[in-house]
Amino acid sequence: MPNIPKMQKAMVFDKPNGPLEYRDIPVPTPGPDEILVNVKYSGVCHTDLHAWHGDWPLDTKLPLVGGHEGAGVVVAAGNLVTNFQIGDYAGIKWLNGSCLSCEFCKHGGESNCADAILSGYTVDGSFQQYAIAKAIHAAPIPKSCDLAEIAPILCAGITVYKALKTSGARPGEFVTIVGAGGGLGSLAVQYAKAMGLRPIGIDGGDEKAALVKKLGGEHFVDFTKSKDIVQEVIDYTEGGSHAVLNLSASSGPLNASVKYVRPMGTVVVVGLPPDAKISADVFNQVVKSISIKGSYVGNRADTDEAIDFFARGLVKVPIEIRPLNELADVFRNMEEGKIVGRVVLKCSD
Amino acid sequence: MPNIPKMQKAMVFDKPNGPLEYRDIPVPTPGPDEILVNVKYSGVCHTDLHAWHGDWPLDTKLPLVGGHEGAGVVVAAGNLVTNFQIGDYAGIKWLNGSCLSCEFCKHGGESNCADAILSGYTVDGSFQQYAIAKAIHAAPIPKSCDLAEIAPILCAGITVYKALKTSGARPGEFVTIVGAGGGLGSLAVQYAKAMGLRPIGIDGGDEKAALVKKLGGEHFVDFTKSKDIVQEVIDYTEGGSHAVLNLSASSGPLNASVKYVRPMGTVVVVGLPPDAKISADVFNQVVKSISIKGSYVGNRADTDEAIDFFARGLVKVPIEIRPLNELADVFRNMEEGKIVGRVVLKCSD
Amino acid sequence: MPNIPKMQKAMVFDKPNGPLEYRDIPVPTPGPDEILVNVKYSGVCHTDLHAWHGDWPLDTKLPLVGGHEGAGVVVAAGNLVTNFQIGDYAGIKWLNGSCLSCEFCKHGGESNCADAILSGYTVDGSFQQYAIAKAIHAAPIPKSCDLAEIAPILCAGITVYKALKTSGARPGEFVTIVGAGGGLGSLAVQYAKAMGLRPIGIDGGDEKAALVKKLGGEHFVDFTKSKDIVQEVIDYTEGGSHAVLNLSASSGPLNASVKYVRPMGTVVVVGLPPDAKISADVFNQVVKSISIKGSYVGNRADTDEAIDFFARGLVKVPIEIRPLNELADVFRNMEEGKIVGRVVLKCSD
Amino acid sequence: MPNIPKMQKAMVFDKPNGPLEYRDIPVPTPGPDEILVNVKYSGVCHTDLHAWHGDWPLDTKLPLVGGHEGAGVVVAAGNLVTNFQIGDYAGIKWLNGSCLSCEFCKHGGESNCADAILSGYTVDGSFQQYAIAKAIHAAPIPKSCDLAEIAPILCAGITVYKALKTSGARPGEFVTIVGAGGGLGSLAVQYAKAMGLRPIGIDGGDEKAALVKKLGGEHFVDFTKSKDIVQEVIDYTEGGSHAVLNLSASSGPLNASVKYVRPMGTVVVVGLPPDAKISADVFNQVVKSISIKGSYVGNRADTDEAIDFFARGLVKVPIEIRPLNELADVFRNMEEGKIVGRVVLKCSD
Repeated sequence: MPNIPKMQKAMVFDKPNGPLEYRDIPVPTPGPDEILVNVKYSGVCHTDLHAWHGDWPLDTKLPLVGGHEGAGVVVAAGNLVTNFQIGDYAGIKWLNGSCLSCEFCKHGGESNCADAILSGYTVDGSFQQYAIAKAIHAAPIPKSCDLAEIAPILCAGITVYKALKTSGARPGEFVTIVGAGGGLGSLAVQYAKAMGLRPIGIDGGDEKAALVKKLGGEHFVDFTKSKDIVQEVIDYTEGGSHAVLNLSASSGPLNASVKYVRPMGTVVVVGLPPDAKISADVFNQVVKSISIKGSYVGNRADTDEAIDFFARGLVKVPIEIRPLNELADVFRNMEEGKIVGRVVLKCSD
Repeated sequence: MPNIPKMQKAMVFDKPNGPLEYRDIPVPTPGPDEILVNVKYSGVCHTDLHAWHGDWPLDTKLPLVGGHEGAGVVVAAGNLVTNFQIGDYAGIKWLNGSCLSCEFCKHGGESNCADAILSGYTVDGSFQQYAIAKAIHAAPIPKSCDLAEIAPILCAGITVYKALKTSGARPGEFVTIVGAGGGLGSLAVQYAKAMGLRPIGIDGGDEKAALVKKLGGEHFVDFTKSKDIVQEVIDYTEGGSHAVLNLSASSGPLNASVKYVRPMGTVVVVGLPPDAKISADVFNQVVKSISIKGSYVGNRADTDEAIDFFARGLVKVPIEIRPLNELADVFRNMEEGKIVGRVVLKCSD
Repeated sequence: MPNIPKMQKAMVFDKPNGPLEYRDIPVPTPGPDEILVNVKYSGVCHTDLHAWHGDWPLDTKLPLVGGHEGAGVVVAAGNLVTNFQIGDYAGIKWLNGSCLSCEFCKHGGESNCADAILSGYTVDGSFQQYAIAKAIHAAPIPKSCDLAEIAPILCAGITVYKALKTSGARPGEFVTIVGAGGGLGSLAVQYAKAMGLRPIGIDGGDEKAALVKKLGGEHFVDFTKSKDIVQEVIDYTEGGSHAVLNLSASSGPLNASVKYVRPMGTVVVVGLPPDAKISADVFNQVVKSISIKGSYVGNRADTDEAIDFFARGLVKVPIEIRPLNELADVFRNMEEGKIVGRVVLKCSD
Repeated sequence: MPNIPKMQKAMVFDKPNGPLEYRDIPVPTPGPDEILVNVKYSGVCHTDLHAWHGDWPLDTKLPLVGGHEGAGVVVAAGNLVTNFQIGDYAGIKWLNGSCLSCEFCKHGGESNCADAILSGYTVDGSFQQYAIAKAIHAAPIPKSCDLAEIAPILCAGITVYKALKTSGARPGEFVTIVGAGGGLGSLAVQYAKAMGLRPIGIDGGDEKAALVKKLGGEHFVDFTKSKDIVQEVIDYTEGGSHAVLNLSASSGPLNASVKYVRPMGTVVVVGLPPDAKISADVFNQVVKSISIKGSYVGNRADTDEAIDFFARGLVKVPIEIRPLNELADVFRNMEEGKIVGRVVLKCSD
């Protein structure tokens, strides 16, 4: 039985945009259907930044411990828990829990559950040493995995993997990834490759081009250089990309993607920018029989599958490890666009 | 062997918006893979009007005999034809033929074939007494069917049936039909009902309300009376409609449909207005995991299935029969919004 | 707050084939994730008979209160329960609970969960006045439903509804139901009809023929009269039935169904006879590209959908209500083949 | 315009099991919807042997030129042909043509067409220098492909690729290939790998073990050494293989595969042995919710996709090239089990 302290370190803010403080707070006690995870590492995601800024229509818990990419070790479990043992590795995901009984939960759409609780948003998350998760929703992590490297899989990895599934693209088909050189994109390229798809990356600059090619991208379209992105995709794919993943979700690229997607193909929209619009020409969409689909994180099955690709070594996560109490700096770096790869905070020894 | 005349009557125009003339023109001769159909009746569709006006980016053949809902009798067949006998009933569809060898044709997406030929648009259509169709694409019609009543099934029926399939709605789920009281809509309500779906109609006025209810609509939302269409659909369906068919395709209703569709649901866009835009809020689409899909007529399998529902008496078509040479009047009535049900032209005795 | 007694009446047996006794036993107390249901009515299913006889490879709990089609009222709920209120109607199903965390549970295959607990088999079931169910798995029943009539839906209804979904048959396609006049079959015919399918019944005798036709069967094949069942199905369906539901699951009809299923079609096997074999000719199965699928009860989503069809009045259940303490007689009648329709036991006032 | 001779060399037999003669026969003339292919190479398949022996219920054309894996150059085309130009590479497949108008053809099930014509069976095939194919069905082959190496893809490759699609296995799932070291199996392992699946091979002997591993097999079960094949597969896959491809189609392995397939998984049956039976325990199949599916060659879309994987270098075909007139020897070697890899006959210079 692990020795669980009464108090722990956590990064907390008391109001939107308020100071991010490195505080001592009590270690919480898991309910009968919950586990307590000693968080070793936590990824940092743009959603954490949106939560801190209060950008979205939904209010956060306050004061809040953010974070929803936490990887650690189970140190306590409620008496109804059957799927985790003390000592197992577990992941804290964005979906901390859901009702499991609404129509969406029953159809594998847990992220659409109206009563979902969200790590680092409606409940405290992984920017602390000991975090609570509903056992049914926590991610089982194989013991062979590195807990620092897997952390970003728990949101970014699941999100892009699910988006690839949502696209309906089959092995051998093209998938164009808008924002291929970024944190989500670099994972998407690798997942696509491992799923037998043919990834094409769109992003800007030679460094990103090199990264995308190294990770398995078959072709790279540099928006800083291309004379006509739409035509370049259509030419390379000989008729249009079977699927498109929009990871940046700003309106311009979104509307371009509707033009270079192949007839009968699918455009997937992934990000959550507060105000962006998708606008498609009706004539074009109807005559080309294309689909535009929203994809929002993933369910528990998607989680296990996304982790399995990582555990088998098919997806690498380039991380930079920094101490938990540097969160404010990390946020600043993210806003300045200075993060290369993915930052992971070290939460516990 | 039927007695095929050399000359026939047809409605022809020589240039966009030019006079619609009732002329004598030669009866065409079918090629080896074609049939010649003695057209008994032809439906009139908004597409015919768009063709006459030259509204769309694609040029029509000129001079042109329009029409693509022709029902008649096979009177001649090329020597490669195996699927029709002289005397069989056959239908002339919008898709007169396609290459059958491109990737779209091979995947059942014949309407996306770049080399598709279109009845009453790129080749002469059904507003004449004798029309040509590629045998593989012509619609087989059971002898039990009334040729006047089935005519509108050949475009309008196929289109809404395919849109219902595209929606992915399963028996027991709600499908909301925007424009439920119109020509396409009144068919969509009946097909939905016959497929075990729960149709909700949106349209304006008591007459349309009565029609939709009579045809099997479970609920009617009157946009001339409803205080809040979005809320009314969400309330009736207890959370949103699983699927929506947009038959009017103007931007306002389209954008509303994205709001009242159920999470994980699908909005289908069907019509071909020249300039309309679909605009969806990204945050909303992603978080609700909804799909927006274009649907464009149907393939040969959809055609047979749509006809089968009609042949089994599950779909009725309220028609008004008028002589072929009144086409110009019919177009005028359509533009004035004065058509109730569907007009069918009598082309031959 | 309902007044819950300490003791209750139940039908219990202590060993396989032992006496079925009407006893006083304690009312159980629900755990934190459980509800206590005051069972008003319980259906009786062949599985209950198999459980009593100990026919299957899996041992039952002993002593055992059987029954897994219990419909009643929630009288108590554990403190983690969010999906039921005291006073709600709830159903006790075969799947009393499952782990919700294995790969099968995560993919909607709860009936394949290795840790599933089974009402009236591994835990006490619905042949008592107060029964326990895991709240997440208990079936929500609308207040508009008659609790006696809905009881058989909770196993028989769900089972045939799921089998119809498993068949992949689409609206307008034929589904042949082997054993159409029996307890499962008479529900299958109605569900098929409500789903837009074209049900064909196979069974024996004029009474069953009349029943099947009344319930919506489009055609009836009487195995006591047909000269060639296989040919009769192929002829009526003009090429074979798109789907077949084998509800009797004895080897003869199973092997026949592989012959009259349409090319590209699906044979679904539903029942659980202890020793039957499916045998298919490889050449035939391959060349016809047919599928043979096992279907085993349904998941929580299937449950809600099956209940919804009933609640909307599309499926009627012909029941005979008898007192709880006549269970032994009912079992005897079932073994004698004397049950017409479905017997429902009245468990509580 | 190529110089087409009047006479050509062909391997012909006049009656079942009659002498295989190397004869001069006329070069056929293509009809309006046909192409004439100068066959450079033809694979030899077990089906050719069955055709010569007359093993199957369906009679062959007589005298017959066998062969249905022909790769060559288009030298003439009928005037309706739009999808091939003179000089293009084309493949002669088992499905030489089909009606394109029956329900199966319309649903992508061309191999189920009752009027399909079969190369080297109901029409002359590829064991000659000039062969006819229906243009719509002939396989387009990119100019970058080696015509000798691609020949076996035209039947064996398409067949295993389609079987993998039929299995429904998704990237990351296990597929067990029975007969992994044989002609079909060695292709199946490579396609599975390229599709992101995890192939497990079952076959006998160290040489086959080495081959399967080299081609991408993740694990090999040697039936000459394994104490318990069923348990070995279940152990390695931690619960059973998501899919199984039975390429040998003898009853023993087939029945074993039903035992080690994962719950909710799929067993695909591919081969066409004249008399084999599949026998499955009903209880097991129902409780495990497994599917057994027949898969028979592939359609035109499958063909293009299978060729694309080859053209991209993801599938290698180990071939031995022999002269056309050694066909009888090749058949003898096949019956003796002496063929390693796949024999390809050189038909023309």
